[in-house]
This record gives sequence, structure tokens and C-alpha cells, in this order.
Amino acid sequence: MSQNHHDYWNVTPDEVESIALGAGILGTGGGGNPYLGKLRLWETMKRGGRPKVISPDQVPDEARISTVGGMGAPTVGIERLSQGEEMLGAVKMLEQHLGAPIPYVISGEIGGSNSLSALIVSAQSGRIAVDGDGMGRAFPELQMNTFVIGGIPVAPLAVCDVRGQSTVVSHVLNARWAERIACAVTVQMGGSSGLAARSMTGAEMKRAAVWDTLTLAKKLGEVVRQARIRRDDPALAAADTMNGQILFRGKIVDVTRRTTAGFARGHLRLRANSGSDELDIDIQNENLIARRDGEVIAVVPDLITLVTEDDGEPVGTEVLRYGLRVAVLGMPCTPQLRTETALQFVGPRAFGYEIDYKPLAGRWPGRVN
Amino acid sequence: MSQNHHDYWNVTPDEVESIALGAGILGTGGGGNPYLGKLRLWETMKRGGRPKVISPDQVPDEARISTVGGMGAPTVGIERLSQGEEMLGAVKMLEQHLGAPIPYVISGEIGGSNSLSALIVSAQSGRIAVDGDGMGRAFPELQMNTFVIGGIPVAPLAVCDVRGQSTVVSHVLNARWAERIACAVTVQMGGSSGLAARSMTGAEMKRAAVWDTLTLAKKLGEVVRQARIRRDDPALAAADTMNGQILFRGKIVDVTRRTTAGFARGHLRLRANSGSDELDIDIQNENLIARRDGEVIAVVPDLITLVTEDDGEPVGTEVLRYGLRVAVLGMPCTPQLRTETALQFVGPRAFGYEIDYKPLAGRWPGRVN
Repeated sequence: MSQNHHDYWNVTPDEVESIALGAGILGTGGGGNPYLGKLRLWETMKRGGRPKVISPDQVPDEARISTVGGMGAPTVGIERLSQGEEMLGAVKMLEQHLGAPIPYVISGEIGGSNSLSALIVSAQSGRIAVDGDGMGRAFPELQMNTFVIGGIPVAPLAVCDVRGQSTVVSHVLNARWAERIACAVTVQMGGSSGLAARSMTGAEMKRAAVWDTLTLAKKLGEVVRQARIRRDDPALAAADTMNGQILFRGKIVDVTRRTTAGFARGHLRLRANSGSDELDIDIQNENLIARRDGEVIAVVPDLITLVTEDDGEPVGTEVLRYGLRVAVLGMPCTPQLRTETALQFVGPRAFGYEIDYKPLAGRWPGRVN
Repeated sequence: MSQNHHDYWNVTPDEVESIALGAGILGTGGGGNPYLGKLRLWETMKRGGRPKVISPDQVPDEARISTVGGMGAPTVGIERLSQGEEMLGAVKMLEQHLGAPIPYVISGEIGGSNSLSALIVSAQSGRIAVDGDGMGRAFPELQMNTFVIGGIPVAPLAVCDVRGQSTVVSHVLNARWAERIACAVTVQMGGSSGLAARSMTGAEMKRAAVWDTLTLAKKLGEVVRQARIRRDDPALAAADTMNGQILFRGKIVDVTRRTTAGFARGHLRLRANSGSDELDIDIQNENLIARRDGEVIAVVPDLITLVTEDDGEPVGTEVLRYGLRVAVLGMPCTPQLRTETALQFVGPRAFGYEIDYKPLAGRWPGRVN
């Protein structure tokens, strides 16, 4: 870790590269590609923006902090890369609504495209990014995160579009309603928006966030990049860093997908490189359940990620194709997602599967608050 | 008029009956039925609520005022009548967002179901309702009103649902965007919401509002009710009060309707009681264009309203049926809707018709600011 007590971690462009790679692996096939966020962050840094990161335990208890991220289709994001201040616009609108400044921001989701959100807002505005997130992975819905699980209201939340238009979802019964309304607004805004949610205290954030996940993503990216250079096994390096395992090595022999109600639901079958073993994976945006020869061997909220056999590049569910040779990583999730309460939000039953959660062996590699 | 200088008009339950009837006639076939609003207002008055109305010119120039109304399907409203504080909830959320009280409210639309909105909020909360609105009739879209025409921003606006959930559309490029976003939120809220929009000064309201339209609706309702009692011609009484005319008397011989993109578009044909004359009416929620034997004789923004032949009851476009005997009223709109700028928002071309506006004879009966 680059930061010391009361010091900021001044993230470098090369560290951004590693964080983006690690975030892809933590994305469990979903969460969107961090590539666009990386370009945006680099662009901002090239213009002098400096992302500053602080450890959760260094945030004052009484400080105000909000989660930031992007909502909507990543493909839309490509066309609109030029503007890029939607998240900052949302933070500013939330400040205006609250009548108070928000000096700290934290990414809602470390897995995938939103991993760099807090860094982007930090580089654009000087606000401080907190080293952590609300998932320790990726999930498809707003209400699936440790802030909601910890009982912290998601509202007020602000969404802002590329034109500077903004809407504040000011009061909702629960996070599921917030998701519905914010999604509907985002659709009207053209399918893509920046999001700033919650008005937490530092103390609340410390209790509810998954800690140090920017550091974890960076480390994960670094070991994979080093393994590539040393011609080691990048998949194994990633699995080891996560205290996880390689569940399977093989090639994709069947992919079925359909997009329903905003979810890419699907099923994936792999055949082992040697022998006739098969692995089946159920998908709802993210990889949710892995079955080897019919037996469940890994299940959400534990992390299941496909990486390319050769260089450990994470494979998103949107780019799955027949014949691709992959390693399937199984990685333990943070214990915050394994409680009885948490499993109601993010366990297999929350996704409609009539099976129980059985924890994967191994200990989450991050610090636990 | 019941009010004197610096006095409030304390609206009575019987006056509510007249206003609702007059608002139906000003609704030009659309705007929804004021029946539900009437029941809600009576219920609030029965519990001690007293709607207070003030003339526009008595509102202090520096006072803060917002428009109120309901959004969404009136049929949904029936099921949810019991709660009834969505508009007030929206006003309160807008106050919270602005960090300032809103002591005055005005209905966005006098025609139809929103005619009583300001009275309801007044009776529920003690805020003062202003005698006026933003249309002097009914229109199908948020941006079609004299506040938008007068350049007063629609945002921030708040919508609130029956559960107390609320959303603030805080910044938009124009009223059309506000309409799109607020509609999308309302759909998520179950199809019905209370709306509070704009943060105007009293001076801005005086410049942009259509004045005295609660008084006008009351008078219109009164003359129709009196004509019923006296067995006079209620349709003629209404037309006279509006300085308008009876365009046609006959029965409905053809109705075609389809609901597209939230609009009830349609066409109506009437045949004269005597002779073979025919009247055709084009409908988009409201009655927009009347053609007699092919020639345009009345066109939006002038008011075209069908009332039943016998008792002058306004006939909404949703209850049109073959064989119904009606009188078709043609009534001049407020001159505020006849300017070149206004016609861009509410003239025939704004509804997609390639014809020019030709003003109906007669002078708007209300006071012009």
C-alpha cells in the first residue's frame, strides 16, 4: 500500500491500469468493462487531475460521504465519453439538495466499470476517494450492496446526464424502489447517467463498506501483470491472491443468452481440456452458480470469474463465445456478504434459485472491518 | 366574486360543485374528470379543511409560488383516493429541496381533474390557492402552459406517490425533458403521482398565469346549473358565459380512438339533428380541430367542448359513444395563448397539423393581466 497514516494514496496512471484489471476479475463476468473508466481517468489525469485515496479508517466519523457510479448501458457510455462529468454533476446536485458539502466519495461497486468511479470524481474535483466499495465484487442491482444490507438508506440519490440534467430521488421505501425510479429516469436520459447516492457519515461508511478493495484490485492486477511478464500462470496468480482456487480449465462448448428486463440471463457450458468433465455456469449479468458434472461447487455471493487461459484477462458475460479457452476462478467473498441478512439480498435465493448458499473454502483476502 | 381586496375567497362545498362542472367544460374533452378531485376536496372540507383563494394581484411580488396537480391515469386515482396527500407531499419535498417555504400554490391546469388541485392543497395545509392557472383550459403535456410560454423554468419539480415516496427533477434543459422524466417516474410509482413544480415569484406568476380561472369555472358551473333548474338551454348558457358559440348540435355517428404513446388519439363525426350537415373533430386527449363539412371552424388553442344536449354536462373524450346527442361549444381562449410564441407551444402545428391557427370570434371572458 502506498498510503501511510494520515497520508493520501496518490494513484498513478500505472496503478490505474492494475486497478482496472483487478476490478475486471472482481467483476465476476458482469459490472461492465473498466476500460472506459480507465480512459476517462487517464484523460482527467493528463489534464492535471490527481485522484487521492484515503483508507476507510482515516475518514472522520462525522464526515459526509456518498457512493458514486455510473448507471446504464456501457455501450451508450462509449459515444458519450467526451463529457464525462455526470457523476460529479450528480454529487454536486446531491450537495445542493442536502445543503451541505460531500467531501468524500466511495465507489458503489469495485467489480467492473464502476471500480474507478470514486477515483474519477476525485481527480475531477479534489474530493477524496475512499479505499473500499459496497460489494467487494459486482452485482446487477442497486439494492445488492453492503450499505443496503447495513441498513443505510439509499436516498436521497441524484442522477445526472451528459447534458447536465439531474433528478433527485428524494424519498423511497427501500432500495428496490430507488433502483426502479433511478433506472426509469436513466432510460429517459438516453440510457446512461452518473449516480451519487446516500448521505452517510464516516462512521456509517466504516461499519458498512467493504474495506480496501481499491488496494485489493490493484494487487490483483499487479500479480496478473507480473505473471504475464514472467510467463507464470496468471489465473493461478489471481486465484492465490484471492485465497481462492481454479475451479476448472477448459473451453466453452455452449452459450445461451437472452436479455430480459435489463438482465443478460444465460447459461454456459465448458468442457475440460483433458477428459470429459463439464462445468455449467448460470448467469444473470454476473456468473452466479458453477456446477461440475451436476454438483454445485461455487455459488453467489462467492466470486466466479472466467479469465483467458493464456493471460488471465477477465472474460465478461457479454463476450462469451464458443471455443474460448478459459480458467474459471472461484474466490471467497467478503464475510460481510455471508451473514444471514446479507444472503437475503445477495444469496442464490435472491436470484430465484432454490438452493442454499454453501461457502467456498478460503478466507477473503481483504481487511475486515 | 366572493373576495374583496386583501380578503380570501373561502370556497364553499357548493362552489366546489360549480367549479368542478365549469372545469369540465373548460377541459375541452380532456384533462380528466374533476369528479375525483371534488370528492377528495369535499372529504377534506368535511374534516375541517378550508380552501382559501386569493386573487393573483393580491399575491406579494416577492412571494414564492408553485404549480400543483396530479400526474397519470385518472382510473388509477380511483383506487387510491383514500390517501390523497400526494400533491401536498410534493409541495413539502419541493420546499425541502429549495430550503424555503412555499406559501402559495396555483393549479397548473383549470380544465378537468387538476382544476381543484390548488384548493385541495390549500384545504389540507392552509397554503393559499391563487385564482388562476397555466392554461385557461386543458392540454395534454406539461410544457403546454403559459408558465413555460412565459419562460419560467419548470424545474425543480417534485413528484410524490401514495406511499410518500418522492423524486425531485432538479435540473432539465426544457419542459419537454421534465415531462419525460416526471412521467417515467410516475409510471414506476404505479401510474399516478402528485406534482409540485416551479419556484416562481409572485411577480412572475402575475405575468404568466391565466388569471381568475377558478372564478370563471365557478361562474360557468353556476350558469349551467341555473339553466338546468330553469329548463333553459345549458349549452347556450355556457357558450354565452364564455363569449363563445354553439358550433353544432347533433348526434355522434362515428368514433375512432387508439391510445398511442400515452395519448388518446381519435376522430369523431357528428350528424346534425336536422339536415345532413356533418361535423368532424380531431382528438388528441383534448378536442383539437372542428371541421364542418370539411371546413375548419375551430382550432386549438381555442376551446372545443362537447356537452350533452339536455343538461350541458361536459363529455370527456374517454366516454364518447355512438348515438350520444350533444352540443359542440366553441369558445375563445385567453389571448395569452394566441401570441406567436404561444402558438409554437399550443397551436395546431404543435400537435402535428399542417394548418394555421385562425382565432374564433369572441373575447376571452376573463380578466387579462
